[in-house]
Amino acid sequence: MSDQLSQTFSALADPTRRAMIARLSRGEASVSDLAKPFLPRMSLPAVTKHLKVLERAGLITKTKEAQWRPCRLNGEAFKNVVDWMEQYRVFWEESLDRLDVYLKSVTARKNAKGRKNARKK
Amino acid sequence: MSDQLSQTFSALADPTRRAMIARLSRGEASVSDLAKPFLPRMSLPAVTKHLKVLERAGLITKTKEAQWRPCRLNGEAFKNVVDWMEQYRVFWEESLDRLDVYLKSVTARKNAKGRKNARKK
Repeated sequence: MSDQLSQTFSALADPTRRAMIARLSRGEASVSDLAKPFLPRMSLPAVTKHLKVLERAGLITKTKEAQWRPCRLNGEAFKNVVDWMEQYRVFWEESLDRLDVYLKSVTARKNAKGRKNARKK
Repeated sequence: MSDQLSQTFSALADPTRRAMIARLSRGEASVSDLAKPFLPRMSLPAVTKHLKVLERAGLITKTKEAQWRPCRLNGEAFKNVVDWMEQYRVFWEESLDRLDVYLKSVTARKNAKGRKNARKK
């Protein structure tokens, strides 16, 4: 049996499931609502299977309040991923810093070129 | 072919690979250094395969500077995951808020019990 965090990462490793998450981030939805955009190229059982993977991974839950049992996102699973990522903050911030240095050098070169062209005129 | 983000999430969905990332977060390491803690229960080809998955996912790179070509973490792939997670911040923060409310209620109950016991003495 896979550990919970591995199951969550594995569930996120699919563009269809990420699209379903994006849809649910705009509000609760029934299984048939969630299935609609995928049905032309995907069968209903395939859609249901994807939803089950998301549910087992803890990323979505089916509410018990309404009779149509809508799906909703479950923040806790997202929080677990973010907590794990947090340990490596220094690495992803380093990558941001490098982007910043690059953008500054591009702007500086652009400005220098601008000044050169202005002198030529 | 899988998209890059799916490949990254898929690479993270394994405790051995996450342990290798934890090791690399403490500094660069050669393949044999990385393999050491896993070798009693894992073969070297199995370790190498895990490292290849991490490399294809962009999470680690092999530096070209030293002759022993150490592995290091690549912040960019981590950044891509964090950027994707960021869209769902409202959901994981909601889960934090719920934890906060719970902890406050536990503390309040504990304090009330403490006061009750103090009055008894």
